Amino acid sequence: MYDKCINLLEERGVGLVDIAQCVLYLQKQHHPEIEEAEVIEVIKNVIKKREVQHAIITGITLDKLAESNSLQDDVLRDILINDKSLYGIDEVLAYGICNLYGSIALTNFGYIDREKPLIIKTLNEHSHMCHTFLDDIVGALAAAAASRIAHNAE
Amino acid sequence: MYDKCINLLEERGVGLVDIAQCVLYLQKQHHPEIEEAEVIEVIKNVIKKREVQHAIITGITLDKLAESNSLQDDVLRDILINDKSLYGIDEVLAYGICNLYGSIALTNFGYIDREKPLIIKTLNEHSHMCHTFLDDIVGALAAAAASRIAHNAE
Amino acid sequence: MYDKCINLLEERGVGLVDIAQCVLYLQKQHHPEIEEAEVIEVIKNVIKKREVQHAIITGITLDKLAESNSLQDDVLRDILINDKSLYGIDEVLAYGICNLYGSIALTNFGYIDREKPLIIKTLNEHSHMCHTFLDDIVGALAAAAASRIAHNAE
Amino acid sequence: MYDKCINLLEERGVGLVDIAQCVLYLQKQHHPEIEEAEVIEVIKNVIKKREVQHAIITGITLDKLAESNSLQDDVLRDILINDKSLYGIDEVLAYGICNLYGSIALTNFGYIDREKPLIIKTLNEHSHMCHTFLDDIVGALAAAAASRIAHNAE
Repeated sequence: MYDKCINLLEERGVGLVDIAQCVLYLQKQHHPEIEEAEVIEVIKNVIKKREVQHAIITGITLDKLAESNSLQDDVLRDILINDKSLYGIDEVLAYGICNLYGSIALTNFGYIDREKPLIIKTLNEHSHMCHTFLDDIVGALAAAAASRIAHNAE
Repeated sequence: MYDKCINLLEERGVGLVDIAQCVLYLQKQHHPEIEEAEVIEVIKNVIKKREVQHAIITGITLDKLAESNSLQDDVLRDILINDKSLYGIDEVLAYGICNLYGSIALTNFGYIDREKPLIIKTLNEHSHMCHTFLDDIVGALAAAAASRIAHNAE
Repeated sequence: MYDKCINLLEERGVGLVDIAQCVLYLQKQHHPEIEEAEVIEVIKNVIKKREVQHAIITGITLDKLAESNSLQDDVLRDILINDKSLYGIDEVLAYGICNLYGSIALTNFGYIDREKPLIIKTLNEHSHMCHTFLDDIVGALAAAAASRIAHNAE
Repeated sequence: MYDKCINLLEERGVGLVDIAQCVLYLQKQHHPEIEEAEVIEVIKNVIKKREVQHAIITGITLDKLAESNSLQDDVLRDILINDKSLYGIDEVLAYGICNLYGSIALTNFGYIDREKPLIIKTLNEHSHMCHTFLDDIVGALAAAAASRIAHNAE
């Protein structure tokens, strides 16, 4: 299941290094000394959690079904394809990940979800693909890893 | 969008009366005097919230896609068809509804999700259909309505 | 900090064995074979989490201040002393614990918070003491441990 | 209870106008046309919710007790006085407010909690006072109001 998640993320254009860059973006103020290799290990541990894996698979499956016009519900398809700003189920799934890592993860997610740096920005610019869930999943994985790093540092 | 949600629930075997019965089940200790017609009005107001509607449409779409073997992901399909007990995304969506109605809604959801009375029991017994998300959505709608009734009563 | 939490719980009448009994109550259907000693180890690990410790200390401090009439706010004191059913900050703190252990923990908490078995019942019957936060903290610790056991069992 | 909350906020240095400024800060990109008077009405409605009132009273009481050295627990007092970054119960209370207003509120809170603009910055600079809970409460009230405005605008 872990391998499947890594492959799904890769297939959709997100490598562990891309997520690590987001973690470094979140942590540069507080822990400028942290290195990418270390961050990647933390991200891997986040993705090893069963609830995280379920969120990744469910969210990416919805993105892909919307993209290939296979959702069998036109209202939901329109919402996902256009990433309507008042649709919040993608964030609900993301909070399902962040909640496991405590309040620091939630705050980090809110920040990165608004700033949309790096790979999150790239995902949002892919006009012919649907990344409604994926961009929030990436933000949540980065926020969760950043929270773990902050707790471990103390 | 409201009508679409009511129709989706009906199509999947859940009427407003079924949800009202769950609310009465949750409230009978505290507010035995409350009547079904009143409860139905509260449930309608819950379903008028945009975030609730998004949860209903997303969850039921996933159930239907799993049922018709159209999810295009066999791992997720197996999880949904078998309603694996450690898959928690259905509860995550349900909490997305309950959170809007405060802590009483969350507690009520936990109780009804474990007791599985009435229509929730019926949904779980449909072996040839997939109601992995729907049973939690019904529980969340009932829990949200029960919370609103408790707050209004004071 | 861990020792302080264990001592605070003891001082307020809650031993690890009392919490373990609540976990066994939650798990008896699913894992009847599990033993108390094993459960206690899981509970200890829950209490080792920094965010859990902060919830324990904050909640019990509020209970003690209400009890000794030292809250310096009469409205809040009345609410806590009477454990008003619509006051939900005790549950909000409890969810802060449960969220770290995923959706199964939240569901278990809702159930145990409504059934109020064992030590939770005892705490609620202490009419001359204030356990508004403590009973929810105990429920959350038990629900978190039960969730961890369910995930480990698979 | 509503009046008590408004007075408590005022007493601690936070007027409705200060919160409105934070809402405008959050919304200026999306709804630059919105006016302060309108925003203040939305904030008042947020503060009319019972669960919001309970969070305000509980959080500010803890701040005041820490400040006046009356918490009767030195560990908790040190944490609150120093606003330790890994103490997350203040955010947990804030999420108790934001959750009532959906995922947009949570995201807005994460952003404003990290940027700390305006009155939130001022509160954090009061070295002789304790605003560990208040700054998060103000952020949560602003985030909740911003979410309500976004939903109403559609």
